Amino acid sequence: MKLKIAVLPGDGIGPEIMKQGVAVMDVIADKFGHEFTYQEALCGAHAIDAVGNPYPDETHEVCMNADAVLFAAVGDLRFDNDPTAKVRPEQGLLAMRKKLGLFANVRPVATFDCLLHKSPLKDELLKGADFVVIRELTGGMYFGEKYQDNDKAYDTDIYTRPEIERILKVAFETAQKRRKHLTVVDKANVLASSRLWRQIAKEMEPQYPDVNTDYMFIDNASMRVLTEPRFFDVVVTENTFGDILTDETSCITGSMGLQPSSSLGEHTPLFEPVHGSWPQAAGKNLANPLAEILSAAMLLEHFGLNKEGALIREAVNASLDANVRTPEIQVEGGKAYGTKEVGAWIVDYIKKA
Amino acid sequence: MKLKIAVLPGDGIGPEIMKQGVAVMDVIADKFGHEFTYQEALCGAHAIDAVGNPYPDETHEVCMNADAVLFAAVGDLRFDNDPTAKVRPEQGLLAMRKKLGLFANVRPVATFDCLLHKSPLKDELLKGADFVVIRELTGGMYFGEKYQDNDKAYDTDIYTRPEIERILKVAFETAQKRRKHLTVVDKANVLASSRLWRQIAKEMEPQYPDVNTDYMFIDNASMRVLTEPRFFDVVVTENTFGDILTDETSCITGSMGLQPSSSLGEHTPLFEPVHGSWPQAAGKNLANPLAEILSAAMLLEHFGLNKEGALIREAVNASLDANVRTPEIQVEGGKAYGTKEVGAWIVDYIKKA
Ligand SMILES: CC(C)[C@H](C(=O)O)[C@@H](O)C(=O)O
Ligand SMILES: CC(C)[C@H](C(=O)O)[C@@H](O)C(=O)O
Repeated sequence: MKLKIAVLPGDGIGPEIMKQGVAVMDVIADKFGHEFTYQEALCGAHAIDAVGNPYPDETHEVCMNADAVLFAAVGDLRFDNDPTAKVRPEQGLLAMRKKLGLFANVRPVATFDCLLHKSPLKDELLKGADFVVIRELTGGMYFGEKYQDNDKAYDTDIYTRPEIERILKVAFETAQKRRKHLTVVDKANVLASSRLWRQIAKEMEPQYPDVNTDYMFIDNASMRVLTEPRFFDVVVTENTFGDILTDETSCITGSMGLQPSSSLGEHTPLFEPVHGSWPQAAGKNLANPLAEILSAAMLLEHFGLNKEGALIREAVNASLDANVRTPEIQVEGGKAYGTKEVGAWIVDYIKKA
Repeated sequence: MKLKIAVLPGDGIGPEIMKQGVAVMDVIADKFGHEFTYQEALCGAHAIDAVGNPYPDETHEVCMNADAVLFAAVGDLRFDNDPTAKVRPEQGLLAMRKKLGLFANVRPVATFDCLLHKSPLKDELLKGADFVVIRELTGGMYFGEKYQDNDKAYDTDIYTRPEIERILKVAFETAQKRRKHLTVVDKANVLASSRLWRQIAKEMEPQYPDVNTDYMFIDNASMRVLTEPRFFDVVVTENTFGDILTDETSCITGSMGLQPSSSLGEHTPLFEPVHGSWPQAAGKNLANPLAEILSAAMLLEHFGLNKEGALIREAVNASLDANVRTPEIQVEGGKAYGTKEVGAWIVDYIKKA
């Protein structure tokens, strides 16, 4: 298969982990006879520095012309600590999501048995937990009308029927491909927008008779993912709730550095780690490349390259089993491997497989 | 001291746990020579059934004329399962908060060593965690302009300067009385309303030079309370984020049934358990009365009756140590006590103290 990949390394540890992601794609291409071509483009703080825009038009064009985007992370301490900054790396992320129409952010929450000790949760709660959170990514308070002066400020949490229908469709269909259990998370006892979500979900339910659908308030969901993570199969929720819930769920597995995600929508699909740009570690060969590598696996699987994806997952698991791990997930007393060394080990494993 | 208490038992397990809360207040009054008088009033589903309004005017009058409100819980399955219901128990709760001007909801998150095994979190993370979440309770999306039709819906997350200033004042002052560490939780990288919160907090910081103030995004906070709960001392946040975060934090201690809260503001202060009305257990003598009893302790402490509050806390700890516990927190193989029996044991302990 021929695939044109837009490569957006971004800021902080982004470029380092991206190198490993691309190296893994390359060895997969070699092995399976695919042709992957890459076009790199600027985004985030790097793009602000270079052209004053965190998601430049040229980058957008590269993304639009590609079959898929492989993204790393954006964000820089210079901007976080400067309240007067007019342009911020995060704006690039939001512009990218909006312009590419990436309305469905899919975050699988899977545990790795050998990493359970790293989770804040008790092992026995987490063992076997395996669910997906689908976060709406281009609506709600992120993009509704905003206003701010010195005495008043507001954001508008707005959703239209088509926006809700298309994300619920993704959720129902994802549930059909999994254990057929969908949990719609909202705050319908307080919010009008949530009541519309719930109304539309109930209208759509009969079209998916094989899916067992339930409804949960976000406050309750923020508890249940901790007390009963195995309850969940597919969770769908709006943008802001999804932001909070997916960060919460990505940390309960104890392997934040191992969580990939995909963002799907109207134009080119995008694949990225759940974690951020960790500027403090940039250039130090410290960052875990596994989330980026697993994002590459999700990318391949998106195009039906399931054997290829499976081989990457096998290699990742093998590296964990062999204790070839970056410092934050290394076992006590184990040798800490660098970003490059973990990536090289996985490339080598795939080559020899 | 003379205190006029408005007693709002509400729905579900509310009346049962309220009985125990009042019994404890009574034995305290006896022992310390106080005069507590009670006036009971309707709210929630009970009030809808009786007068068609979940927070009737008569109830509001009783609350306004009292020195404090002791509240239990509202909510009923009949309404949760009926999407066509025009009036809901929750509306009574929101109307009560708004009319009494209860803008500061204070939720202490304390652990009980003997209950750590009930927490979803690993014991070593939680041991010694002791913080307070202050949730803004009368602003934001809960009360901003709403709209809903068949094709579109929105809620408005709006805050004004005075609303933000008064809640931050409570937060800074609470921090001064504790370990002098305040964490302002917001989503200032996306929301205009959060940016105003952050701006005002930074303006106020110099007035509290003894308080160490930091800022955290809500998505990050939803992780940090799990991975590093001891980091926190006082957390302040807006209404919706506070709803999600306090449910999350109340469950990490493993003792949801033991978490009291106070809501303070313009008019009569209110004290209530963090947990809900648990309609499934109503009338079964199963519910844990400790959160209601500890809410009574918070009430007394609010009026400077610190010895009285301390004695209630001592009695509660003694009941736990003696394994006089309701089923959900009983140790394996231990005898499960009923709501009444736990209450009676505590009353007896106070009497004999
Ligand atoms: C950086 C920020 C704007 C972004 C978001 O809130 O969506 C991030 O937290 C995420 O979850 O991707
Ligand atoms: C019942 C509901 C309206 C309420 C809220 O969201 O405030 C509850 O969840 C709470 O936290 O007191």
